[in-house]
Amino acid sequence: MEASTIATTFPLRPLFLGPHSRSHLSRFRYLGLSIPFSRLFAASVRSRDHRWQFTTRRSGDRITARPSSEFRRKNTGGNGGSEDEKLRSLRELFSRPGIGIDAYIIPSQDAHQSEFIAECFMRRTYLTGFDGSAGTAVVTKDMAALWTDGRYFLQAEKQLGRDWTLMRSGNLGVPTITEWLNESLPPGCKIGVDPFLFSYDTAEEMKEAVSNKNHELVFLYDYNLVDEIWGELRPKPPCKPIIVHDIKYAGVDISSKLSTLRSELAEASCTAVVISMLDEVAWLLNLRGNDVSHAPVFYSYLVVSNTGATLFVDNKKVTEEVMGHLSKAGVQLSPYEAILSEIESLAGQGAKLLFDSSTVNAAIVSIFNSASNRHFHRPENKVKGKIGQETRLESTKQDKMAQIIGQNTLFKISPISLAKALKNDAEIKGMRNAHLRDAAALAEFWAWLEDGVQKNLNLTEVEVSQKLLEFRRKQFGFIGTSFETITGYGANGAIIHYRPNPASCSVVGDKNIFLLDSGGQYVDGTTDITRTVHFGDPTGRQKECFTRVLQGHIALDQAIFPERTPGFVLDVLARSSLWKIGLDYRHGTGHGVGAALNVHEGPQSISFRYTNMNALQVGMIVSNEPGYYEDHSFGIRIENLLHVREENVPNNFGGIRYFGFERLTFVPIQSKLVDCSLLSLVETKWYNDYHSEIWEKVSPLVQGAAQEWLWRNTRPLSLPQQIYRHTRSFPKQCARSHPQKCPKTLSKLYMKLLE
Amino acid sequence: MEASTIATTFPLRPLFLGPHSRSHLSRFRYLGLSIPFSRLFAASVRSRDHRWQFTTRRSGDRITARPSSEFRRKNTGGNGGSEDEKLRSLRELFSRPGIGIDAYIIPSQDAHQSEFIAECFMRRTYLTGFDGSAGTAVVTKDMAALWTDGRYFLQAEKQLGRDWTLMRSGNLGVPTITEWLNESLPPGCKIGVDPFLFSYDTAEEMKEAVSNKNHELVFLYDYNLVDEIWGELRPKPPCKPIIVHDIKYAGVDISSKLSTLRSELAEASCTAVVISMLDEVAWLLNLRGNDVSHAPVFYSYLVVSNTGATLFVDNKKVTEEVMGHLSKAGVQLSPYEAILSEIESLAGQGAKLLFDSSTVNAAIVSIFNSASNRHFHRPENKVKGKIGQETRLESTKQDKMAQIIGQNTLFKISPISLAKALKNDAEIKGMRNAHLRDAAALAEFWAWLEDGVQKNLNLTEVEVSQKLLEFRRKQFGFIGTSFETITGYGANGAIIHYRPNPASCSVVGDKNIFLLDSGGQYVDGTTDITRTVHFGDPTGRQKECFTRVLQGHIALDQAIFPERTPGFVLDVLARSSLWKIGLDYRHGTGHGVGAALNVHEGPQSISFRYTNMNALQVGMIVSNEPGYYEDHSFGIRIENLLHVREENVPNNFGGIRYFGFERLTFVPIQSKLVDCSLLSLVETKWYNDYHSEIWEKVSPLVQGAAQEWLWRNTRPLSLPQQIYRHTRSFPKQCARSHPQKCPKTLSKLYMKLLE
Repeated sequence: MEASTIATTFPLRPLFLGPHSRSHLSRFRYLGLSIPFSRLFAASVRSRDHRWQFTTRRSGDRITARPSSEFRRKNTGGNGGSEDEKLRSLRELFSRPGIGIDAYIIPSQDAHQSEFIAECFMRRTYLTGFDGSAGTAVVTKDMAALWTDGRYFLQAEKQLGRDWTLMRSGNLGVPTITEWLNESLPPGCKIGVDPFLFSYDTAEEMKEAVSNKNHELVFLYDYNLVDEIWGELRPKPPCKPIIVHDIKYAGVDISSKLSTLRSELAEASCTAVVISMLDEVAWLLNLRGNDVSHAPVFYSYLVVSNTGATLFVDNKKVTEEVMGHLSKAGVQLSPYEAILSEIESLAGQGAKLLFDSSTVNAAIVSIFNSASNRHFHRPENKVKGKIGQETRLESTKQDKMAQIIGQNTLFKISPISLAKALKNDAEIKGMRNAHLRDAAALAEFWAWLEDGVQKNLNLTEVEVSQKLLEFRRKQFGFIGTSFETITGYGANGAIIHYRPNPASCSVVGDKNIFLLDSGGQYVDGTTDITRTVHFGDPTGRQKECFTRVLQGHIALDQAIFPERTPGFVLDVLARSSLWKIGLDYRHGTGHGVGAALNVHEGPQSISFRYTNMNALQVGMIVSNEPGYYEDHSFGIRIENLLHVREENVPNNFGGIRYFGFERLTFVPIQSKLVDCSLLSLVETKWYNDYHSEIWEKVSPLVQGAAQEWLWRNTRPLSLPQQIYRHTRSFPKQCARSHPQKCPKTLSKLYMKLLE
Repeated sequence: MEASTIATTFPLRPLFLGPHSRSHLSRFRYLGLSIPFSRLFAASVRSRDHRWQFTTRRSGDRITARPSSEFRRKNTGGNGGSEDEKLRSLRELFSRPGIGIDAYIIPSQDAHQSEFIAECFMRRTYLTGFDGSAGTAVVTKDMAALWTDGRYFLQAEKQLGRDWTLMRSGNLGVPTITEWLNESLPPGCKIGVDPFLFSYDTAEEMKEAVSNKNHELVFLYDYNLVDEIWGELRPKPPCKPIIVHDIKYAGVDISSKLSTLRSELAEASCTAVVISMLDEVAWLLNLRGNDVSHAPVFYSYLVVSNTGATLFVDNKKVTEEVMGHLSKAGVQLSPYEAILSEIESLAGQGAKLLFDSSTVNAAIVSIFNSASNRHFHRPENKVKGKIGQETRLESTKQDKMAQIIGQNTLFKISPISLAKALKNDAEIKGMRNAHLRDAAALAEFWAWLEDGVQKNLNLTEVEVSQKLLEFRRKQFGFIGTSFETITGYGANGAIIHYRPNPASCSVVGDKNIFLLDSGGQYVDGTTDITRTVHFGDPTGRQKECFTRVLQGHIALDQAIFPERTPGFVLDVLARSSLWKIGLDYRHGTGHGVGAALNVHEGPQSISFRYTNMNALQVGMIVSNEPGYYEDHSFGIRIENLLHVREENVPNNFGGIRYFGFERLTFVPIQSKLVDCSLLSLVETKWYNDYHSEIWEKVSPLVQGAAQEWLWRNTRPLSLPQQIYRHTRSFPKQCARSHPQKCPKTLSKLYMKLLE
């Protein structure tokens, strides 16, 4: 999956915060890959220089930030007058007893910082009418503004009603949300948020930022104001049954996973850990769900203590089988809503909790902190040391990310994040098998599409996407797509976040490049693959760009590197062939992928953002997806999934191990787009070997037209053009006496060189 | 110059401080390249885990750190009993009135954090007898210990007397200096230092570290205790005349440089800047000196204010010409020793000073801070804000390195550091010319050495090094070596920091590889080049290793990259060919080089340490020096200097510029050591093109044997072995009728492929 859609996951931080914010960048592994971090912060930096580019209006003592006339849209399109009604209702709630706020922030998130969320949690979409994946709305008593990034400016302009101001994040002079709040509100206001929808870190940073103007961030635990006005129309929370993830795919049983986690708890001197990331819960308990699109997870929290474990989940989702599966491992059940009272009760027992404060929401951490402070302030529990005063201390452990707040809270990257990333043999086996079936589906699909284009069937991007789903559905164990399929023909392919719209999408033809990025969730694995093809005659320019992307793809695929190498070190390998002619791509090169879980996971990544120091370790899965995008023209991306494995190298300098990659994806890369003259012999050999392996592995799984397509598309590359050229100038005398022989010799020589 | 000798420059910090110290890592660009940072800190990390590996002895209330029996040497070698005398005299001073200390720390540094220092400042060497480039001595009332790193363990064992304990930095359980002081001394001791010999940052970090045991770091401004006991025998400070660096080499006159600096001062709202790095003074004033070996600098400080500039230097070094040169630019002269009183006087005027606290010594900054506090505490000068209280604030500017202390001090990376690194056209021209003359000297040298080895003249590494100096001396404008020449034959080449010793060095023969790393200071430029050759028959292993080092060298040389790319991003290009077979090297790949100045300079570097975020910018010079070292066997390094330039690429994706390198070094790389079958066509073409350029540029500068040697050593690489093999199996029929033609065809084809 192209790395930029990932930007939809955590849009809050950059919108809120300036460049010096104390953010756990490593968690922002997917963030804004299509937009450089620096650009998201650009406005913020300017404002610090007192060089705000937009006009300000004095009204009394108050300065109203008013970017420019274009920021306030005058059209009456979108949802028409209905937003006004929603805004009016929302503002009415501001002054209700027990609320009393001057502004309310509505993010895109659910309570678990999920990438894909259930409809009932799409509050920002409901309120604003804007349904892009990234965006945060802020409503004050007299203003309403929505922040989104460059991918969504046009869409937001269309969808937002007249009462909304669009804040184009990253554009010159556009303030971050907290800067805007500080500028727009008179000092000492109360800014309300639903504390479940912000990670603790983000909430703390917001608190600090707005405190500059003596604003107070008010946590409204009891109501989500948007839900209040949504009322009866709000969709019900998802309630599909949870299923047991077969041990033959999971590889390790719950008890073993819990036991490992408990030793980590013991080592960190913690009583319990609160897990809120849905994929972490699913992985740890060997369960899968169906609450959201694209990811096999279910809404829940999990608390694992040194003696027990409790899953907080809607009981209606729990089947008998799941119940037995959990009770065998000593996991108790509790209602989803009971998480806060459990947290309070743990605090009352003097428990010391481990949180990943970049993912666990502010509601949970804050409730724990205050309950814990109450506990320690009781005379019988008083101990030495500062309580209640938040002192971030460096941990005595080597783990620099670990931080202690007070005495009873340890903030640390979730220990499950890394454990989940290091796939065991069963998970790898499942991933291999799922990828082969996925490859068979794709062979059938490509054969069908090639035929359809040749027959001028005028298939649209949406139809193509639906047909692909049909082919995948025929494969064993298919559950659904692992993300929304990207089918981008021609100029659409250059829009990195493109999603075809039935009303406006293009027909896939033979006049330009077609980019397809898609993936499947299978019972045994998760796939994510991009291929770029041309059904007609590609231009020289397109071939050169494609070939350089391919060279980057090969260089990363073939990399061997010492253990402890962070992913970013390898990023340049994927880019340097493009750089040679002054080209580049504005997204990362690789993200982690779950095994029959989320298509995006951490902690590793391969990116030009040099802040993620997580090493690539044996068992991790990463995508390899360099690309090139020519605005208004075409897009290219070649994506395989790779499995990090130890390489059997002839030396082990430094007494350490050296790692490399096993390819999981086996789908042909179109040879028509390759300019063979640019490839080195080693690259040509890589291409030929890979395609011969594809034929060997996938041909038994397909028949008829698909098998024929696979045969045609796994032939070795033809001779480089230089050799062709040379065969024409072969010594006449020799050619005359042995007309066939000498060109053949050259071919043989060439093949020999490839050995 | 091999990157590890550079480790000698800043040995203090890692010895003193644990891994979480607040160090300006970017300044430590040369540090410990042969020893991973983490290893230098290993002991420290352990101690935090309360897992000290060495034994402790209780004596009363006091715990004496006593690493292991091997740490206290029992031999009576080295300087015999004389150290006892020195130690005794030193300890007598501890209780002298006005001193009153319990321990004294003696670092390797001079007052300017120089890499090469004058003999009179080699106090640690005088006191301990150990003359390695890196090491810090600590003397308490009853103990004396020396910290050095793995490069010098053997040497230190031999040179230290019986009263010294050798502390092997980086070995398991060996504490840092401050850890050792905290463990060894009873609480509340006074630890004396010469504040001129520590950067302000290092001194502050030491202060903090020893305060854990209530120790006090005492600045002894008035005496250096070692100088006191050295007495009459101490060499006089150097006093060679300063010379004017011709404007045709400097390119920009002093006034322009001062004016640029003053605008930076104005932007930072500072009154003046104190410059203490000797190469920065020399660069800014277009002067050169002769006070130390290898670097054309002179001992001095420079204070540039918004209206004037004062050079603090021994007047005896200042010729009439220099006097005129300086006064024309409004630079005044003051005695070297007057720096402190000037600083006090500036403080008295309420000046706000800019310091690079990672290089300016603690004496200067502390004197300024206290004088400044006195000034602001006078009733007439009282202003709002905290005075005297040290508050490190983040600057309001975007420069994250800038920090404010109190109201009158701005800590910031020296603005001269970057300005000096960006060479102007005249400097680049000088560097190009100096490199060509250096190449001519090397051609003569290599022709001479090859002949000598063939004639079995039994030339030693030291003789070879002396002869090389003779050849360089014949070239126009030669001043001296730019660092101590490394001539390492066979196993000696594997010792990265090797310096041949006349008494024990090897004869250069034809049975193993010979590594030569050397450089020259010329009137117009500075060179630094490493070549590795074999005068006999290299083994297959040696050829494979050499070829992979060469491939890394070529990959970095050919890199093209977007502007704003930090050097570390390119480091992997130089290593990946070695990694493919599990090999690596334990030093950085590239360091900055001055123009007729220091052979090592910042701020840029190309290294696997990912902390130096300085981008490679047009006009910078960097070395390209991958290597491979097989312990007890041989060493390989191939080093050229590169000039960062803008590349004329066909695209400019992102609207930015793309940079690449111009080679400055033109000396053949021995083809005998290249395994052609490993090279790609592009790499072979690089080799052939480079050598044809060498012949073209350098052959006019040499005659006779040297020219013949150059001719032989600039021939293109022969055909890859696969082609050779194939020509043998050429179809008999064809070969019979055209015996010469067809193999030639293949050669032609090959050459065609190279086009």
